[in-house]
Order: sequence, then C-alpha cells, then structure tokens
Amino acid sequence: IGDFPGHALPGVFFFVIGLWWSTKSILKYVCKKHKQTCYLGSKALFQRLEFLEGIRVAKTVIYFSTGIIGLQFFAGGPHLIIHNESPWKRVLRLQHLTLYFFFGLLGVASILCSTVSSIPVSLIKLMMSNAFFVESFIFYNHTHGREMLDIFVHQLLVLVSFLTGLMAFIEFLTQKNILLELLRSSFVLLQGSWFWQIGFVLFPPGGRTAWDLLDHDNIMLLSVGFCWLYALAFIVIGNSISVIVFLLFLLTSSCSFFSFLFGIQRMRYR
Amino acid sequence: IGDFPGHALPGVFFFVIGLWWSTKSILKYVCKKHKQTCYLGSKALFQRLEFLEGIRVAKTVIYFSTGIIGLQFFAGGPHLIIHNESPWKRVLRLQHLTLYFFFGLLGVASILCSTVSSIPVSLIKLMMSNAFFVESFIFYNHTHGREMLDIFVHQLLVLVSFLTGLMAFIEFLTQKNILLELLRSSFVLLQGSWFWQIGFVLFPPGGRTAWDLLDHDNIMLLSVGFCWLYALAFIVIGNSISVIVFLLFLLTSSCSFFSFLFGIQRMRYR
Amino acid sequence: IGDFPGHALPGVFFFVIGLWWSTKSILKYVCKKHKQTCYLGSKALFQRLEFLEGIRVAKTVIYFSTGIIGLQFFAGGPHLIIHNESPWKRVLRLQHLTLYFFFGLLGVASILCSTVSSIPVSLIKLMMSNAFFVESFIFYNHTHGREMLDIFVHQLLVLVSFLTGLMAFIEFLTQKNILLELLRSSFVLLQGSWFWQIGFVLFPPGGRTAWDLLDHDNIMLLSVGFCWLYALAFIVIGNSISVIVFLLFLLTSSCSFFSFLFGIQRMRYR
Amino acid sequence: IGDFPGHALPGVFFFVIGLWWSTKSILKYVCKKHKQTCYLGSKALFQRLEFLEGIRVAKTVIYFSTGIIGLQFFAGGPHLIIHNESPWKRVLRLQHLTLYFFFGLLGVASILCSTVSSIPVSLIKLMMSNAFFVESFIFYNHTHGREMLDIFVHQLLVLVSFLTGLMAFIEFLTQKNILLELLRSSFVLLQGSWFWQIGFVLFPPGGRTAWDLLDHDNIMLLSVGFCWLYALAFIVIGNSISVIVFLLFLLTSSCSFFSFLFGIQRMRYR
Repeated sequence: IGDFPGHALPGVFFFVIGLWWSTKSILKYVCKKHKQTCYLGSKALFQRLEFLEGIRVAKTVIYFSTGIIGLQFFAGGPHLIIHNESPWKRVLRLQHLTLYFFFGLLGVASILCSTVSSIPVSLIKLMMSNAFFVESFIFYNHTHGREMLDIFVHQLLVLVSFLTGLMAFIEFLTQKNILLELLRSSFVLLQGSWFWQIGFVLFPPGGRTAWDLLDHDNIMLLSVGFCWLYALAFIVIGNSISVIVFLLFLLTSSCSFFSFLFGIQRMRYR
Repeated sequence: IGDFPGHALPGVFFFVIGLWWSTKSILKYVCKKHKQTCYLGSKALFQRLEFLEGIRVAKTVIYFSTGIIGLQFFAGGPHLIIHNESPWKRVLRLQHLTLYFFFGLLGVASILCSTVSSIPVSLIKLMMSNAFFVESFIFYNHTHGREMLDIFVHQLLVLVSFLTGLMAFIEFLTQKNILLELLRSSFVLLQGSWFWQIGFVLFPPGGRTAWDLLDHDNIMLLSVGFCWLYALAFIVIGNSISVIVFLLFLLTSSCSFFSFLFGIQRMRYR
Repeated sequence: IGDFPGHALPGVFFFVIGLWWSTKSILKYVCKKHKQTCYLGSKALFQRLEFLEGIRVAKTVIYFSTGIIGLQFFAGGPHLIIHNESPWKRVLRLQHLTLYFFFGLLGVASILCSTVSSIPVSLIKLMMSNAFFVESFIFYNHTHGREMLDIFVHQLLVLVSFLTGLMAFIEFLTQKNILLELLRSSFVLLQGSWFWQIGFVLFPPGGRTAWDLLDHDNIMLLSVGFCWLYALAFIVIGNSISVIVFLLFLLTSSCSFFSFLFGIQRMRYR
Repeated sequence: IGDFPGHALPGVFFFVIGLWWSTKSILKYVCKKHKQTCYLGSKALFQRLEFLEGIRVAKTVIYFSTGIIGLQFFAGGPHLIIHNESPWKRVLRLQHLTLYFFFGLLGVASILCSTVSSIPVSLIKLMMSNAFFVESFIFYNHTHGREMLDIFVHQLLVLVSFLTGLMAFIEFLTQKNILLELLRSSFVLLQGSWFWQIGFVLFPPGGRTAWDLLDHDNIMLLSVGFCWLYALAFIVIGNSISVIVFLLFLLTSSCSFFSFLFGIQRMRYR
C-alpha cells in the first residue's frame, strides 16, 4: 500500500471503470436517439446491450475477486510477519478491506437489480454514491499526523470521490440525464489518474528526486496538475464519444445497406 | 449521562426505532407492489397497517414517557444533591431535556397528522429532520474543551444525525421514495450502534483498559469501525427485508390457497 | 449599535415580521382549504387578502423609513462628533446601511410584483433569500478580533439568517409549500428572539453581572438556549395557528349562519 | 499578473460578459412574453436572436484569442528572461492557462450545441458551472502563504465564482428560469467589479497609499464594499431591464404602427 504500485493499481482500476461507464452511457444515449433510423441496427444494439449486461455481472465478480486477491495479498502475505507489524499498518489494511466491501455491495446491488424486477433500479445509483461517500470518508480520516503535501494530495482525492458520490446521489434523486452520467464518469477518470499522480508524488519511482513535502509552491503546482488531469478526463470522454459515434455510423450505414439489399430481395421475391 | 448506560440506553432506543422504521417502510412497499396479486392478503395487510398506526400513537406516548422518566432520573434524582452539582452537569441535563422536547414534538406531529386530515402529511418528515438537526446542533456544541478522541467520536455522531436529518429533509421535499426511507433507517441504526461504540470507547465497562484519547491511530481505527457499523446497518436491513418477504410469501401463498378453496366452494354452491 | 437597544430593536422588528409572515401563510392555506365550504366567507377573505396586500406595500414603506430613520439616528446624529469617531464605528454604520438597502430591495421587489404582472412572483422569494444571505455574510465578517463568546453568539445569528435565506431559496426553486413558509417564519422568529438574547449577553441591562466571555460552559448553555428559543418559535406559530383556526371557525360559522338566513329570505321572496 | 492591469483586464472581461448574459436573457424573456402582441416584432426579434447566435460564436473565438494573446503576453514575453524567473511565477502562469482552457471548453460547448442538434442544450450550463467551479478551485489554491487581507479578497473571489458555478449547476438541473439567469449574471458582474477592487487594494495605482494588509478593520470594510458592488450589479441589471423594455416598447409600438398602416393598405387594395 505504501508504495508506488499500491497507488498505481487502483488508479488503473478507476480509469478502466470510468472509461467503461462513459462508453456505456454514451452507447445507450446514441442508441435511444437513433433507434428509429435503422431497425436492424437497434436490434443488434439491444442484443449488444444484453451482452453488456452479462459483462456487468462478470465485472461484479471481478470486483469481488479483486477484493479477495487484495485481501490475500495484503492480509495473507503479511500474515507470516504479523508479529512485527505495526498497528498503523493493520488500520490501513482494515480501511482497504472496508473500501472493497462497499464496492462489493455496489456489485451485489447491480446483480440484484438486473435479476429481481421489483427492486427499484435507482438502488444501483444509491449504492454507487454510498461507496464513493464511504471512500471519501475513509480517505478523509486516512492522513492524521502526516506531512502537508501528503495531506493535500489526499484531500484532493477526498474532494473528487465526494463529488463522484454527490453526482451519483443527484442521479439517484433526478431522472436519467446523460450529461450527469458523463460528468460522473469524468470524475472517476480523474480519480484514476490522480491515484497515479499521488504515487508519483509520494513514492517517486526509478530513483527520481522526491518532492519537497513542505513547500507551498508544490501545493499550487499540484492543484494546477489536478485541473489538467480533469481536462484530460474531458478529452478522453470527448475522444470516446467521437470513436463511438464513428463506429455506430459505420454500423448503421452498413446495416442500412444490408436492409436496402434485403428490401430489394424482398421486392424480387414478391 | 457520563457513564456507560447513559450511552447504551439511547443506543438501544435508536436501534429499535431504526428497525421499526425500516420494517414499516419495507412492509408498505411490498404491500403496494403485491396489492393486485391477492385480494384477501392486501385487505388483511391494510388492517395490519391500521393496527401499526395505533402502535405508532402508543410509540409517541412512549417517547414522552421516556423523556419524562429520563427527566425524573437525571433531574429529580440529583435534585437532592443539586447544591454541590457543577454548572457543567446542569448544562448537560438541559441539553438532554431539549433533545427529548424535539423528539416529543415529532411524536405530537405524528399524532396530529394521523388525526387531523387537513394537516399535510409531510409535517412528520419536517419534524423528523428538525429533531435530528437539533440533535446534531446540540452534540456539535457538546464537546467544547475535551480530549481529541472524545471530540472525534462525538463529531461522527454529529455527522450521522446531520445525515439523518438531511435525508428526512430530502424526503420532505420530494415524493415518497422507498430507498431514501431505508437509507434514513440505516443511518438511525448506525446512530444506535455508534452510541454503544462511544460508550465502549469513553467508559470501558468491566475494568477493560481505557483507550488512549490522544492517539492518532485510534482515530483511524474508529473511523474504520464507523464504516463497519454502517455496513452492519445495511446487513440488518437486508436481513429484515428477506424475513419480511419470506413471511409475506407464506401469508400470500396461504391466503391464495384459501381464496382458491373459497373459489372452489363458490363454484360448488353455484 | 453597541448597546442593548441596538440589539433589542431589530429583535422586535424580526419578531413582528416573523409573526406577520406566519399569520399570512396560515391564513392563505386555511382559506384555500375551506374555499368550498362557505362562499361568502371566501369572498370576504379574498377582500381581506387584498387589504393585506395594501398593508404589505405600507410595510415596505416602513422598511424604508426604518432604514432612513436608522440612518438619521446613526449617521446624522454622530455627524457632529464624526471627527473623533473611530473608523471601526464607521464600518459598523456602513454594514447596517447595507442591510437596510437589501431589505429595502426586498420591499421594492414586493411592490413591483404586486403591480407589474409580467414579473414572475418568485422574485420576492429570491430577494428575500438574497437579503438574508447578505445579512449572514455581513454578520460573518462582523466579529473579526473579538472575544470567544461574542463570536459564538454572532455565529449562531449567521447560522439562523443563513438557514432563513436557504429556506427562501428552496421556496424560490420549488412550488408553494405551506410547511416551508412556516419553517422560514419560525427561523425569522428565532432570529428576533436571538437578537434579544445577544443584547442580554453582551450588554446586560440594569446593572446585572456580565457574562464571562471566555468560558466554554457559557457556549454550551447558550447553544441550549438557542434551541429553547427555536422551540419557543414553534410554540408561537402553533398558538397563532390555533387562534387563526378558531377565529376562522367563528367567521365561517357566522357567515354560514347569515348565508342560511339569506337562503331563507330568498326562499320567502320566491 | 501581479500588477493592476492584470486584475483590471479580467474585471472588464467579466463585467462585459455579465452585461451580455443579462441582456440576452432579458431579451429572450421579454420576446417570449410579448410574442403574441406583434407579429412583425417577434419575427424581427428572432432574426436578431440568430444574429446574436452568430455573435456568440465570434465571442467564443475571442475567448480563445484572449487566451492565446494572454499566453503570448505572459508566456512568450517572459520567455526571454525565463532563466531568472521564479518557479512561483511559472505556477501562476500555468494557473491562468488552465483557466483559459476551461473557459475555452465553454466556448467549444457553445458552438457544438448550436451546430449539432442531438447534443443536449444543457451542456452549455454544465460547462459554464464547470468553468466557474474550476476557477474557484484554482483561486482557492492561489494564495498559500500570503498576507491576511490578500487571502481575504481572494476568498471572496472564490465565494463569488463558486456561487456563479452553483447557479449554473442549478440551472443545469432545473428548467429554464429567468430569475436564476439574472442572478448568475449579477454574480458575474460582481466578479468583474471585484477584480477591479482587488487591483485597487493590492496594487494601488497612481502612487496612492497602500492598504494595511494586516488590519482587521480593512476586512470588515472590504466585506461591506463587496456587498455594495453586489448592490451595484443589481442596479446595473435593473437599468438594463428598463432600457431594454423601453427600446422594445418603441420597437413594438412602431411595428404595430407599421402593421396598422399595412392593414389599411391591404384594406384599400381589397
């Protein structure tokens, strides 16, 4: 945990989840908009969406297994050396265990909502906001008695996970809104890249010079870097929108071509 | 007040209330969903709901009597030794009196709404949010000049009662939402179990070693414990949902069996 | 300003305004509920409401004149001794002038909305929330470099005026809600009585012993007193509700009696 | 940046934008209200609105060019003396670059929404709230380790840009509301004039005496000045409303006169 991979791994995890959520919500929005243009396309897309649903369940299993593997890694491994482990490390491990549990609850809620029909669908959003709020609560109480810059980078992490939870809660209260979903995805992307930034700041890999943890200028520099990573999240989402629209354009044009052929064939056989 | 039972008693009180509210909202939701499946069942359940209404009024009386008993206990008892009582203790007693008053107002509002029809029903939610906001305000001003860990555990209490009040206020503003009600119930359950935790931390019963009130690691450990108690509240609610659904399944299947018999009888007599 | 009447006067002002607003919103709600029961009553009540509207305009003029009188009092009076006036006093006078201006804007908005029909009615709520937010902003920056208890009582004033502004803003965003209006009125009542409390704490009249401005127990005592004044506001509103309902009951029963007589007369003449 | 023009320029920029937005929203509201009174007028006004749309695109280009010119000015100019530039200055330049980028994003969103029809229109509001939130975030981390008054004036800047972002976000969530738009415009006007105030306080032009950056009274005076600038924004918007209504009255009366003439002509030729 207290090393570079311990911050890079959740960074990759959140970045992939953010990409996944943004892709899914863009796909759903575009499909709903262009449902009437191509019958075949919409049908193929709905099959694809059910396929996505299957992937979601698999993703949930991955959630859990990540948690369990993480537990094995951090709890099982140091089990041999638990006698000389500091209580501070044990608390950190418990904090990560709690995080895994609440993200696991999000997975359970996701499975329940897609199988049991009488459960309201907004349960997923509630559990999502819950998981992110708990994450921000834990990271808020993560840094008692550390250096200034260390506290600052974790405070920004608290800020971004709190905002993600807030967006999920607003989604829970209001009706479906594509822009809110994309905003939430961009916050998740930002969180992923910020984990990397924390890793680079606190545990500079490859023998680089460490950051001065007591310099005010570094705080201002990191706050600017935070904004640039946010801008990067926007650019990533913009790119994925254009790629998806381009692919769907190819798909719909080819399927309209085939439906045209099919129409000709039908005409011929009539 | 400044002992273990003084924190365990409200803990039990809030836990029971949380269980009660979650059970009631689950029952209402399930009844509304399965109203059309079984005529007899829904009728029996509505009678049951009116019975619940009667219990609610009784509960209100219990609110009051708890307050009055508490007053007798804390105000009447030390009345004999009031001359050597510190002003700090007197302030604490006033704070508890205020709490009882606002929860009593919630009870009065609940009685008024069920008897006078022209009062809007959302008055109950408003008074509920009011009571919890006042509670968080009082506990916020409860710990001036104490130790760090003492302040921290009370701040978490402030956080959870503020969140409960916020949820009740959102319920007041929006329409009926089963998930918001369950979230509120889970916060109340959390508050109840957190009262127990405070009792264990500040006044360790049975001669256990006291907690170090100035250690930063204890804060991190307690924040994790807070999350686990929150998870516990979720598990309790999940269990009560499954128990209620199972019982209702038994009830509806038996009543559909009887209505089937009744249908046969009607057929026979026709 | 820095004396007892300087805090008692706005206290009376806010208490009267709070009473007025609560009475008006209760009247409107009861009239709308019982519109169908008595034709004559509703007609008489609507005329009464228009009369109320006229009073509101007069009230606006009183707003302004209060401000101007206050200016004369605080600006004109000390004008003679302005050379030996401290800059701190001048700042305080400017702060009060600003408050009068924004409450005057509320009056102007109220007049505009009742005369020009194309202005949205919610402008009044917006200006109201604006005035209270500005008030809380000014009182927040009112106490730099004072004693602890002095800061605390003003912070509570900031809290209550911020809450009033927040309620008015929520009213601005949502549709008409009688409970929100009453809640706002209760906050205004609380603000009025809290001004009196501040006057008693900071400038004890009649040669009473002054409060110890550095004692933590006094903070806890005052926070309890704040809650009791809030409870008092509730009791005042509850009383005014019962008085209004009783008076309206008298009015509607007498008017239904007269309409009964009128009906008999009509029958006789037919 | 650290001089008077560096604060006066964005002040003028925000003031002009605030005026522009308020004018536009007033125009739209008045046109919608009086659409039915004059056919010709509404037609002419809609053409005018499309013309406005063209100006908006031009404005976006100006956004960008301002950013680029600013970059040339602050980045290209000191490029020659970059070796003896302090890292603190470089961080400040990066902060301004970030601000330009996010306001540029707002321009891009504005162009996209007016050209691509399948993008939801509320994207503009989202990007607007985004830009102002990022601005408040950056200015919040702008003043680490400065004097008290310097921090205070920037905190007020953070407050006003946060409020602007909040208003834009509420507009994003709710439906169209003329008063919210005007409130947002007034905050933008306030921000513009406050930039001027900051310039006067921190870098008094023309050899005036500098402000004492450590005096508590100056804070209270500036908070009052902040309120007066807010009142000024209200007065500016009120004036622009009356000017627009007067001009539209002239326009509609003249066009109703011409339509009257046209009607007479049509009658004559029939």
